[in-house]
Amino acid sequence: MGNSFGRAFRVTTFGESHGPAVGVVVDGCPPRLALSEEDVQRELDRRRPGQSKLTTQRREEDRVEILSGVHDGLTLGTPIAMLVRNADARGGDYEEMRTKYRPSHADYTYQAKYGIRAWEGGGRASARETIGRVAAGAVAQKVLAGFGVDIVGWVAQVHEVVAHVDVSSVTRAAVEAHPTRCPIPEVAEEMARRIDAARRDGNSLGGVVEAVARGVPAGWGEPVFDKLDGDLAKAMLSIPAAKGFEIGSGFAGILMTGAEHNDSFYRGEGGRTRTRTNRSGGVQGGISNGEDVFVRVAFKPTATINREQETVDVDGNDTTLKARGRHDPCVLPRAVPIVEAMLALVLADHALRQRGQCG
Amino acid sequence: MGNSFGRAFRVTTFGESHGPAVGVVVDGCPPRLALSEEDVQRELDRRRPGQSKLTTQRREEDRVEILSGVHDGLTLGTPIAMLVRNADARGGDYEEMRTKYRPSHADYTYQAKYGIRAWEGGGRASARETIGRVAAGAVAQKVLAGFGVDIVGWVAQVHEVVAHVDVSSVTRAAVEAHPTRCPIPEVAEEMARRIDAARRDGNSLGGVVEAVARGVPAGWGEPVFDKLDGDLAKAMLSIPAAKGFEIGSGFAGILMTGAEHNDSFYRGEGGRTRTRTNRSGGVQGGISNGEDVFVRVAFKPTATINREQETVDVDGNDTTLKARGRHDPCVLPRAVPIVEAMLALVLADHALRQRGQCG
Amino acid sequence: MGNSFGRAFRVTTFGESHGPAVGVVVDGCPPRLALSEEDVQRELDRRRPGQSKLTTQRREEDRVEILSGVHDGLTLGTPIAMLVRNADARGGDYEEMRTKYRPSHADYTYQAKYGIRAWEGGGRASARETIGRVAAGAVAQKVLAGFGVDIVGWVAQVHEVVAHVDVSSVTRAAVEAHPTRCPIPEVAEEMARRIDAARRDGNSLGGVVEAVARGVPAGWGEPVFDKLDGDLAKAMLSIPAAKGFEIGSGFAGILMTGAEHNDSFYRGEGGRTRTRTNRSGGVQGGISNGEDVFVRVAFKPTATINREQETVDVDGNDTTLKARGRHDPCVLPRAVPIVEAMLALVLADHALRQRGQCG
Amino acid sequence: MGNSFGRAFRVTTFGESHGPAVGVVVDGCPPRLALSEEDVQRELDRRRPGQSKLTTQRREEDRVEILSGVHDGLTLGTPIAMLVRNADARGGDYEEMRTKYRPSHADYTYQAKYGIRAWEGGGRASARETIGRVAAGAVAQKVLAGFGVDIVGWVAQVHEVVAHVDVSSVTRAAVEAHPTRCPIPEVAEEMARRIDAARRDGNSLGGVVEAVARGVPAGWGEPVFDKLDGDLAKAMLSIPAAKGFEIGSGFAGILMTGAEHNDSFYRGEGGRTRTRTNRSGGVQGGISNGEDVFVRVAFKPTATINREQETVDVDGNDTTLKARGRHDPCVLPRAVPIVEAMLALVLADHALRQRGQCG
Repeated sequence: MGNSFGRAFRVTTFGESHGPAVGVVVDGCPPRLALSEEDVQRELDRRRPGQSKLTTQRREEDRVEILSGVHDGLTLGTPIAMLVRNADARGGDYEEMRTKYRPSHADYTYQAKYGIRAWEGGGRASARETIGRVAAGAVAQKVLAGFGVDIVGWVAQVHEVVAHVDVSSVTRAAVEAHPTRCPIPEVAEEMARRIDAARRDGNSLGGVVEAVARGVPAGWGEPVFDKLDGDLAKAMLSIPAAKGFEIGSGFAGILMTGAEHNDSFYRGEGGRTRTRTNRSGGVQGGISNGEDVFVRVAFKPTATINREQETVDVDGNDTTLKARGRHDPCVLPRAVPIVEAMLALVLADHALRQRGQCG
Repeated sequence: MGNSFGRAFRVTTFGESHGPAVGVVVDGCPPRLALSEEDVQRELDRRRPGQSKLTTQRREEDRVEILSGVHDGLTLGTPIAMLVRNADARGGDYEEMRTKYRPSHADYTYQAKYGIRAWEGGGRASARETIGRVAAGAVAQKVLAGFGVDIVGWVAQVHEVVAHVDVSSVTRAAVEAHPTRCPIPEVAEEMARRIDAARRDGNSLGGVVEAVARGVPAGWGEPVFDKLDGDLAKAMLSIPAAKGFEIGSGFAGILMTGAEHNDSFYRGEGGRTRTRTNRSGGVQGGISNGEDVFVRVAFKPTATINREQETVDVDGNDTTLKARGRHDPCVLPRAVPIVEAMLALVLADHALRQRGQCG
Repeated sequence: MGNSFGRAFRVTTFGESHGPAVGVVVDGCPPRLALSEEDVQRELDRRRPGQSKLTTQRREEDRVEILSGVHDGLTLGTPIAMLVRNADARGGDYEEMRTKYRPSHADYTYQAKYGIRAWEGGGRASARETIGRVAAGAVAQKVLAGFGVDIVGWVAQVHEVVAHVDVSSVTRAAVEAHPTRCPIPEVAEEMARRIDAARRDGNSLGGVVEAVARGVPAGWGEPVFDKLDGDLAKAMLSIPAAKGFEIGSGFAGILMTGAEHNDSFYRGEGGRTRTRTNRSGGVQGGISNGEDVFVRVAFKPTATINREQETVDVDGNDTTLKARGRHDPCVLPRAVPIVEAMLALVLADHALRQRGQCG
Repeated sequence: MGNSFGRAFRVTTFGESHGPAVGVVVDGCPPRLALSEEDVQRELDRRRPGQSKLTTQRREEDRVEILSGVHDGLTLGTPIAMLVRNADARGGDYEEMRTKYRPSHADYTYQAKYGIRAWEGGGRASARETIGRVAAGAVAQKVLAGFGVDIVGWVAQVHEVVAHVDVSSVTRAAVEAHPTRCPIPEVAEEMARRIDAARRDGNSLGGVVEAVARGVPAGWGEPVFDKLDGDLAKAMLSIPAAKGFEIGSGFAGILMTGAEHNDSFYRGEGGRTRTRTNRSGGVQGGISNGEDVFVRVAFKPTATINREQETVDVDGNDTTLKARGRHDPCVLPRAVPIVEAMLALVLADHALRQRGQCG
């Protein structure tokens, strides 16, 4: 269990890294939405490995096929199943992992949980699993477009290199202009240098992805457990390598007093209730307040590194392992479309839920 | 919707701050567990207002009544409903809130979502809602005791004052020794001074609660969406005033390289597979690895402050508001049992789920 | 688990027959609906024991208290918790059941499942549990009224006595006119005679409740698993003593050929697509078609009878048991409001789900 | 929504009749179970069209491909996705259905619900959708084998022709011996004659499928809503053309008094608590009691007949329609593996749930 997400707009992903295919079933999508394989492919191409020297060289075309739920280019309201075949699956690269656990990977925990694991390339724990999320996220973004919501994510930090991005104006074009997906060119260049150095050094780096959803109306999110920020936190922490989540001011807000931190309300354009600051990150009491929904996600440095590491084998004996196989020295650039997808999945779900309960 | 949490061990809370009662129904609890009202009351007393001058002076006895699911002191396996009457509900203190939204509170968003709200004391958004969580958490901790798991939470930071607590040895006794619930006495004293100063200043402070679950076996958590850390993130962000979540190294892990960050495996006592460090926070690939499960939760400074603030009224017009009513200048001390409860709810749920699927 | 029902309009019931209370939490109710305790009490009074000599003489006032989710007479959109205290709980009547299983009751299966049971009066398996359903059903009927749906149920058969009732015109007034809840007076009288004879004979009778929902728009129900008739079947079979379910022509439809059975479409009033017959029972392919939704539920004869029966004790040894305690010689009259409630719960849930997905 | 079934053993089906493919994702399957495509194919072959002259002549090889969740012939505990391509999809046969609704089909209701439909061959409402159920049912039966449960279904009635089958001894071999899937040869022959006559007459017939699960231990099922019989009722009514459900004595039990109907307990072999009769159908109070779980499902006569029928077109105007396309004059024989699959899905789900809650 645990492979479904969402209540009203619900996705179920499947697939192991080196099995026949990965994919997703989207249930609950509103009918009569224009949807083509190209719409989905565009997002998958942003997630795909081999886009630049910053990412893994595994070559996967990652062509999506829509198997159901679409008729003459329109969604039917029935489940949309989407499939991507695994092509460049060099299981041989992973032979050593058959018997040894990679440190800070899921090899050991899958074995401990299930008493079995698809050891090639991490199996279900591989980042290839996120293909289903990104494909579903493309559908969710179509749904959200109908509600006037747009989503942009970007790399805000790699190791010590920080980009201060203007949340209200950043565009996807600016993000896509550089392979790091950092929208500030000079910072992006520095990030690229650091990533490349880490790669050459057989090492890896972590960082922060930020994302914003603009145009979210007030009223989405369902207290007390399915708060919008609660569901976002879960969505983000479910991404491989994520270790932290913030909404609005996050941990930094601790250093402010209440008088400094509170977002004053004022009468805005058209009489709309607005806040002067947005330390709440667009969510108050678990419900969107009409301001930008803003989140930050921490990603640890990639666990796979080209260095010899101490570990144990499947019999529990001490040994060492030097990973082979292709991998990203820094997952951040490819994590951007995944964060965007998860943000879209949460919002699409709550858009439909709000309409269901409150009309 | 959104008032239930968990799949196998499932809680549903109800109640508004100034309605007749708050409470919870726990469904899925294993049968034949010893459970008394005293077991639950003990935890509620830790959450209760008025414990010290650091917390709100609202006087609530918060006596719990178990309405169902227990027979001769043992759980039946049927739903356990628990009720706490609202006693000291001075609606009058809140009269101004009938027409004005408190900044950074949920007054406005509830109104935007539902077109109606219980305006006295925040209604459903009041921290009184967490009574149900803490009551259910007491039951969950009983379940977890049977699996050998114990849970401790503490205040690790108030504003700029930080406590460095040893995660593997900290005890609940140490935590309970000081009203701040910071287990390091001298830091606790400094925190108390700051909180008291903020209170006198009509201001408020935020901070960090940390919590650990020790004894969690390897194998809990259900990738890819119901990862243990994903569910923990949702659990914690669903607590009022929470703005951030970290597992293991969290955001700080970004400043390490992969070579520094990876947790090496080694053959431990009794042949058990262990890790030398625990930057993973006890979770790898969304599944527990047998190490301490360690989380951190950021709480913003309390939104209610005794100062005049800019806001709008229910007609959307600019106005000002000076909150009256009793409130905590810092929620951190009382947040500890709530964080513990949510940690327990997630773990109990996954304990039963793991047993269901994998035997 | 298993004590919640519905996805968008979701109820969770709790309570044992001889515990402190029974009740229900309704989550997902649309906001701003007028709702009072009287609205709920009216339905509970129809379910209450002791209404006539046809039903159990257990005296319960069954006064409902709304604990949350309603403010100034309007629903808040937050969980509506409703409570009924157990008053006339003569545990003593059941002393023998502490050690002996009543045939065709749930005593044995609860013990087998949980290894424990609340043996007084059937505990959770008692028909008192349905109080929560009826209370929630009263709320659901309020929701449905807003969609133009009204619901009527009646007793259509007791043992061999059958009433042929006109589904499209039967009224609740006609049903309530006789304590049997059979709307055809002379048949009702014969039913009453049979029930009374069975009671005097220490025996019991079963029968059929029929129910109709009129005004259901086309489009409710979610194939392929949450079909409207699938959810109705589950709802009805979850009622104590139910053994069979039919929608539309049901089992009788088997004796027709396809040419006889098909419901021809025609252009009806206002251009609305109608069917000339309604063998489909208002549901085709799991989705309502705008005709009357019509169901039939079979109830077995009450298991509790005033005769000595063979059984085993809790140690598994053969013994005999003569039930004492008060019980209904025929559950049918009191089953009517319960069937109506379950019908309302399913429809309210699908009303909100349809609005969520399809707008 | 509505395309998932089960809580712990959860299936999600997808696919339209004339789209690229149909399939299913099974989540929650226990790990380390032997599973091959042949295991699944065997069940699909029993469901496949074109098996005999009694069934539709649509030629589909219906080859299943397992896409995930299995490694070296063993289940991984991760989602098992299974795919069947649609091959012989003669959309042309259905051209008239683009504009006309087939009586007693789901054409109209899908259009009313979604405002769009895949009109070729019924789209999602086609019986091809059940391929996913049967494939998942094959997996569920593997799970159940580990609990000692076996399942047999058969055709018990076609129109007026009734077979009285001994529930405790009937074998799948006896069922498979005749294309009608009625295990009593002379009755089977008469059924076949009637079906063939109906086919030649352009007409269709309905009937009853019965099924038994033997070896179910006492304790499965979760009152009060997820009762075993409640979930079975939903499972069965979700099958295309199902109109009625009975457990144990069903509607016939109404004609007995309580004294006649009750199942007496006695001390059986090995001290096991048994019942002398099984009018309960193996379920009491919604929980299995260790006796055979026995259900009956009514199927209406196939809606598609080769006769001109009155209907309306998509503009709501009166017209007539004579169905072309290939179809079954009687769905009963092919419904048997579907009923078995649904029975298996419910039991596998409750097996895991019981283990989860009660250990």
